[in-house]
Amino acid sequence: MRILTGIQSSGRPHLGNLLGAIIPAIELSRNPDNESFFFIADLHSLITIKDGKTREENVRAIASAWLAFGFDTDRNTFWRQSRVPEHTEMAWYLNCFTPYPMLANAHSFKDKSEKLSDVNAGLFTYPVLQAADILLYDANVVPVGKDQKQHLEMTKDIATSVNSQVGSEILVLPESRIDERLMVIPGIDGQKMSKSYDNYIDIFVSEKDLLKSIKKILSDSTPLDEPKNPDNDITFQLYSLIASDDQTAEMRDNYMRGGYGYGHAKKALHELILEKFKEPREIFNYYMNNHKALESKLEEGEEKARVVARQTVSRMRQALGFGA
Amino acid sequence: MRILTGIQSSGRPHLGNLLGAIIPAIELSRNPDNESFFFIADLHSLITIKDGKTREENVRAIASAWLAFGFDTDRNTFWRQSRVPEHTEMAWYLNCFTPYPMLANAHSFKDKSEKLSDVNAGLFTYPVLQAADILLYDANVVPVGKDQKQHLEMTKDIATSVNSQVGSEILVLPESRIDERLMVIPGIDGQKMSKSYDNYIDIFVSEKDLLKSIKKILSDSTPLDEPKNPDNDITFQLYSLIASDDQTAEMRDNYMRGGYGYGHAKKALHELILEKFKEPREIFNYYMNNHKALESKLEEGEEKARVVARQTVSRMRQALGFGA
Repeated sequence: MRILTGIQSSGRPHLGNLLGAIIPAIELSRNPDNESFFFIADLHSLITIKDGKTREENVRAIASAWLAFGFDTDRNTFWRQSRVPEHTEMAWYLNCFTPYPMLANAHSFKDKSEKLSDVNAGLFTYPVLQAADILLYDANVVPVGKDQKQHLEMTKDIATSVNSQVGSEILVLPESRIDERLMVIPGIDGQKMSKSYDNYIDIFVSEKDLLKSIKKILSDSTPLDEPKNPDNDITFQLYSLIASDDQTAEMRDNYMRGGYGYGHAKKALHELILEKFKEPREIFNYYMNNHKALESKLEEGEEKARVVARQTVSRMRQALGFGA
Repeated sequence: MRILTGIQSSGRPHLGNLLGAIIPAIELSRNPDNESFFFIADLHSLITIKDGKTREENVRAIASAWLAFGFDTDRNTFWRQSRVPEHTEMAWYLNCFTPYPMLANAHSFKDKSEKLSDVNAGLFTYPVLQAADILLYDANVVPVGKDQKQHLEMTKDIATSVNSQVGSEILVLPESRIDERLMVIPGIDGQKMSKSYDNYIDIFVSEKDLLKSIKKILSDSTPLDEPKNPDNDITFQLYSLIASDDQTAEMRDNYMRGGYGYGHAKKALHELILEKFKEPREIFNYYMNNHKALESKLEEGEEKARVVARQTVSRMRQALGFGA
């Protein structure tokens, strides 16, 4: 199965992104039945981010994080969308097969155009670029959140329209797979961990800064020597998401037996993160400080991606009378 | 001055296209102060034409006609839009700087979406691809018909928005030049000569077929020996658009003196076209029958166009944080 995933390049990944999306996706990519095509959707980011420096830093951090957690770029394909010009070329072809009302009535456009101040044509045609992203790589499966299900349906409709109008099955219809496993990771205030709530933990900072942000995790005011309920506590929740079962059981005992304070638990979480993510922290910092090494990793992926993308574009061009 | 013109690839050019647009544009391109960038807008044609064979034939005929009338592709640049992928790449960047309401309120979209049965996203974002066409080549002047003036204003607005948001004048603002000289050439029924009225004369067919279509030109029923009013007669109008002043004066005398029938005038028009367009007819048929020769002419132009387009895209990419 060929699995395609677009990775938003909206900023440096935090613990919530790592535990909720990046690590599970990398684990899935290890299944020998699957071939993963993962790209950084930096062209999409232009809809909301106009500043070039911000985009460069975001993309670098995202790429470094995926590499840091061991995404195997030899067995899979990992690239920046903006480095494969077939994405935008394909998007134009698909534009001409996309009914205008389909886009105008899309839930996501309606929602976002009410919230955003900059309602641009990129936001409007975003589902078509997304269809190009998917169809270029003959993806079989696209794991999506529930909010993206309608876009996947549009991709299928557009592909069906192309195939029927050119009279040949030149595009592969993908299936969406609603990712039920997607976990909500609590932030330091107990809400979903998110950049926009400013409640996140960045595991790639210095040990000292990491400790600082862990100390900010909310806890109740149960005195040190009293037993505590681990299931109501954010520090425990985060700890148990990273720790082994044994470690979690031990921590649960600590909480329930009393005499173990939240400060102890936070110190344990700090140590666990440093120990468990020692190698990813090193690799992340290596790539963040070695632009050339990161660049060459990504360029390798871009060459591989282009080979596939060109084949699809060539099928489209031939069918539509644009040469091969 | 760098003049940019997009040529619609809607079919084999007829006498009306030649006299009204192609020949005047080629004459303008001979002005040594100007550098002409003329491209065949085949990507735009996908909005309405889905059949690949039709598009290939249309593009071949358009290109052959321009070459047949002596467009100097060494001094100028002549290419197919679909062969320079920077057009669609640039269009995506510009999409993200184009306010959605600007497109939704465009006159041309409103008009066309009422008339066409296939109202697709290509039709909607067409002005953005057009802005990309223009801005990619740092065009100073874009000759347009009145119906296109609003699109040119959009191009300027989009370019202004990019320049102001990236804080640097990376895009050249073009000026529109409303082409007042555009002549309306009468068809065989006296209405504007047009494919859609099926009243056109194709000068590239055999001598016999050309005579057949000239014989179909409407005329009144004034008897042969009576004087005729040349200014009311379509054959005379077409003749005078092609003939020298002396030839026209002589023909006027023939009409007014009587004893000269419409059949004579039509025969004279036939001979004039064959004589005047001898070389273009030969060159047209040469390119129509020698796909490789045509292809290599166009590919030369595409290489030249890409050099310029890449420079602009590179400025955009750097400013927007997509690398160079």
